[in-house]
Amino acid sequence: MATGAIRRGPRPGGTDTRTEILEAAAAVFSRDGYQRGSVRGIARAAGVDPALVRHYFASKSELFVEALRPPFDLSEQVTRMTEGDPQLVGHRVMAFFVEVWDDPVRGPRIIQLMRAALDHPDVAEFVRTLVIEGVIQRVAAAVGAPNPARAAATAASQVIGLAMLRHAAHIEPLASEPGDELIARFGPILTRLLTDASGDSTTKQTTSSRFRLGVAVDSPLQTG
Amino acid sequence: MATGAIRRGPRPGGTDTRTEILEAAAAVFSRDGYQRGSVRGIARAAGVDPALVRHYFASKSELFVEALRPPFDLSEQVTRMTEGDPQLVGHRVMAFFVEVWDDPVRGPRIIQLMRAALDHPDVAEFVRTLVIEGVIQRVAAAVGAPNPARAAATAASQVIGLAMLRHAAHIEPLASEPGDELIARFGPILTRLLTDASGDSTTKQTTSSRFRLGVAVDSPLQTG
Repeated sequence: MATGAIRRGPRPGGTDTRTEILEAAAAVFSRDGYQRGSVRGIARAAGVDPALVRHYFASKSELFVEALRPPFDLSEQVTRMTEGDPQLVGHRVMAFFVEVWDDPVRGPRIIQLMRAALDHPDVAEFVRTLVIEGVIQRVAAAVGAPNPARAAATAASQVIGLAMLRHAAHIEPLASEPGDELIARFGPILTRLLTDASGDSTTKQTTSSRFRLGVAVDSPLQTG
Repeated sequence: MATGAIRRGPRPGGTDTRTEILEAAAAVFSRDGYQRGSVRGIARAAGVDPALVRHYFASKSELFVEALRPPFDLSEQVTRMTEGDPQLVGHRVMAFFVEVWDDPVRGPRIIQLMRAALDHPDVAEFVRTLVIEGVIQRVAAAVGAPNPARAAATAASQVIGLAMLRHAAHIEPLASEPGDELIARFGPILTRLLTDASGDSTTKQTTSSRFRLGVAVDSPLQTG
């Protein structure tokens, strides 16, 4: 743990120094985000010289993803989500995310992680590998999605969109909807997305082209 | 339209000056986003003094939302989306968004608008009023959602999550999925979200509590 007093100059690079830098970085990035969180501020919070931070972490993005990496085994979570009634898989996935979002430590971290993924390709790649491929795609494969990679990306778009509207933009009524209601309401939605019943039918393209606005609408336009 | 040559000092404040500033602001914000797009850079692009920008727009957020406001009548779009087979309403909404995202001018604008909404409450309020309440909620009400505000926020979370993963984080396979396939695949998903068949059942809270991880799982944990 970082101590309250700020020590000047570099510290001896003990086994705990890297961990202390990571804890300081997690706190700073959770509060300030990727863009505004500075290596200098993290060094100050950890009580070390900025050069020591750069000794352990080659880049700010490496420090960011290492600091916000979840401290628990995701494989265990995947196992929990895939076991039980397949029709309730979406409830279990949603319960996992609501638990993370509502956690006072992990919540702000995952929101900053998703926010940063929208701006920084290396962070997006980390989220894709860790969350989408590492968790959601394995769940989609376990429940028999015909195209697990696509089902996982689709389910992730719903989950991440919800996280952003609820916890970043604070859009109502999502922002104040109780976690239990979210789980009950988004569970069936996620079960459908994860099992991806749409398949890979080749009739899609021809049927969908008539929905292009301006190509064919069902009746003359009226201004509402 | 902004001219190529940079004129020094303030210009006479003609009727077109405000429009020229807005066009320059739309271009700068589409390219650089809210955070990095500066009033100084916008003034330079418009060929005016920064003081003149501040004369027309009280704040950067006002300039931002005015510049990225869509130049067409959204009521007309709402009418198009609500007419026709109610089971295909999701296709029409999705077709509208795919058309906007794929537009070389409007696409980057709406992505920057949604990105900024995650960081700035006044931009979030603008997106909520303009897109969620002004478009999606009116469509949800027209197709008989029991709680149109909630159905609109839910559908918006799916649409905005998809936009973010496809056009900001560039997550595959969503990033390269053809627009027609997206419309065919997300159409039924959005129809369900907009009509919100989940209702307001009071049994939700009690049934959902057992999905809380750590409270009750179906079998002992295994590491996968």
